[in-house]
Amino acid sequence: MATVVVLGSGIMASALATPLTDNGHQVRLVGTHLDRDIIDSIQTTGVHPNLGLALPAGVTAHHLEDAAAAFEGVDLVMSGVNSFGVRWAGEQLASLLRPGMHVIALAKGMEADADGNLEILPRVLAGQIPAELREQLTFSAIAGPSIAGEVAVRRHTSVVFTGEDASVLPMWRDLFATDFYHVWLNSDFVGVEVCAATKNCYAFGAGFMSGILDAMGDEAGDRYVNFNYGAALFGQASIEMIDFMHLLGGEPTTPLGLPGIGDCFVTSMGGRNVKCGRLVGAGLTFSEAAARMPGVTLEGAAAIKVIGAAMERLTERGVVNPEQFPLLRHLYEVVGLDRGVNVPWDSFFGDCVTVAA
Amino acid sequence: MATVVVLGSGIMASALATPLTDNGHQVRLVGTHLDRDIIDSIQTTGVHPNLGLALPAGVTAHHLEDAAAAFEGVDLVMSGVNSFGVRWAGEQLASLLRPGMHVIALAKGMEADADGNLEILPRVLAGQIPAELREQLTFSAIAGPSIAGEVAVRRHTSVVFTGEDASVLPMWRDLFATDFYHVWLNSDFVGVEVCAATKNCYAFGAGFMSGILDAMGDEAGDRYVNFNYGAALFGQASIEMIDFMHLLGGEPTTPLGLPGIGDCFVTSMGGRNVKCGRLVGAGLTFSEAAARMPGVTLEGAAAIKVIGAAMERLTERGVVNPEQFPLLRHLYEVVGLDRGVNVPWDSFFGDCVTVAA
Repeated sequence: MATVVVLGSGIMASALATPLTDNGHQVRLVGTHLDRDIIDSIQTTGVHPNLGLALPAGVTAHHLEDAAAAFEGVDLVMSGVNSFGVRWAGEQLASLLRPGMHVIALAKGMEADADGNLEILPRVLAGQIPAELREQLTFSAIAGPSIAGEVAVRRHTSVVFTGEDASVLPMWRDLFATDFYHVWLNSDFVGVEVCAATKNCYAFGAGFMSGILDAMGDEAGDRYVNFNYGAALFGQASIEMIDFMHLLGGEPTTPLGLPGIGDCFVTSMGGRNVKCGRLVGAGLTFSEAAARMPGVTLEGAAAIKVIGAAMERLTERGVVNPEQFPLLRHLYEVVGLDRGVNVPWDSFFGDCVTVAA
Repeated sequence: MATVVVLGSGIMASALATPLTDNGHQVRLVGTHLDRDIIDSIQTTGVHPNLGLALPAGVTAHHLEDAAAAFEGVDLVMSGVNSFGVRWAGEQLASLLRPGMHVIALAKGMEADADGNLEILPRVLAGQIPAELREQLTFSAIAGPSIAGEVAVRRHTSVVFTGEDASVLPMWRDLFATDFYHVWLNSDFVGVEVCAATKNCYAFGAGFMSGILDAMGDEAGDRYVNFNYGAALFGQASIEMIDFMHLLGGEPTTPLGLPGIGDCFVTSMGGRNVKCGRLVGAGLTFSEAAARMPGVTLEGAAAIKVIGAAMERLTERGVVNPEQFPLLRHLYEVVGLDRGVNVPWDSFFGDCVTVAA
């Protein structure tokens, strides 16, 4: 049986203790400086306050100042911080990791440089580690449709493990896979992670359909909702995720199945990101909507700002055509530029609908 | 301004009167022998009882015995019957159509011959018309994510028109397209219609996730649901729809966007088909579940029976591999063979997940 040490004790990282401990492994959760209340709660009551569940036996919780001790004697590391903490996590890991260790990361998103070149977050994480040490580590990632709480309570969940070094993926699968936690392996690291980042953008738009009904009030009635609207956005999202593969070097088939379409489905079903999109769909500006959700991390909105701004740079440079990614561009107008929702329907489906007249 | 005559006065056919009459066209709804109450209601009160809405001015309603008069002087025909009435509709149209008329059809599904060869329903419809007349007609179809009631109350809806003769599609688009009813054209007639048929199958499976929670009762709690489960099925559906393109001669890109993924999304959000899937997910056999929904047409279940049985023939003949279409095959076990739900997770995602070890 193995021991996995986890940097970050958010809900996804903590939920993954369920399949790991079901398989007999030990899990050491190390909280960040933002996780003090979580670690205190687990240490005193065993309950993860944000999951609302007692964590399994086999899980121990550690404050950040005890990280070095928690990492002692362990080769397997999960980076459980979210997208906002990736650089910080990399800096921490630079002093905690030793040659021969294996890292698997959860954060979803991308960073962009001033020219609009986009980089997946596991590579940003690895980039914080000095090169000499980094070359003696492996970096993998978990993606696919996976609501944390469902994993924690053992609902059937199907995910994808990916990474720079495909040879370690079967080891990670064997550690995690159970009768309810189904793991597939995909060596298209860039493709899988770009899907994971962009689906958060498109799920923000999934809130619009409900928000528009909210704004209609009683006029909307309760019989006919707005699923046709949401379905068209979802369909366009599927096309743009495939365009992102061409743009960033993923396999065109990667968005099919779990990494793109499956994950976009589950992310569109609810959560903070969709709730914010709903407020915007109802007529608030993004700034107004975000102000109504103080303290809430909006990873989808943050990804829209990064990727949308990069898209402008890439368009200026001629790397992408102005006609490509109309939905992502509109999401950026809404979230990045605080404009109202006004879906550019006529610009959709350009590449995939043909008529041979 | 044009006049469109419609055979069948169900909710989808009647809802499409909204964009047509918004464009100033006249619509003549001709009820089938099953639509007598609907036609009576429209004639006396203007209200379509199943839509729960008054139809727009510009719509007239006609009983079947007055069909010949309703077809008088009209060149544009919509076949609005559902999949169960396609052969009947074709037989009626054989005596109502005249050379030079244009037909657009709504029914979604497939028929199979004894060898498992599958045929899209618009071609089955056309096949009822004597060849000499048929060659002087055009046959098109409407597909894509479109809940009827939402169309009737002018919610944004994005659809695909397709057909044997792509040259008539712009005419149909110009008749229907409005500021809320967005129409794309796609000349991949087989691909679009196969998506439309198969998405009804997969949407039946979308009910399982809720049914499983129903069966758990209080144990399930109300905080964590079963979206990971649904997302995995949805992802697998996207892959199988693309496999259907290879099997039946559609374009591999057709399921992207509106015809496959978008339509599967909207169909999975609710309706009678999903409700029946939910009962089965909760532990009833399909026969038991269907018995609880007397008089309800279950087009998705019917499509599963047809396509699933055909899949067995095609497998026997070596046309498809036994490893292909595992979700469709399981849906057939459930609906066609009355077995319990037991999703074969490990058989999923075979073609699209790779690891270069």
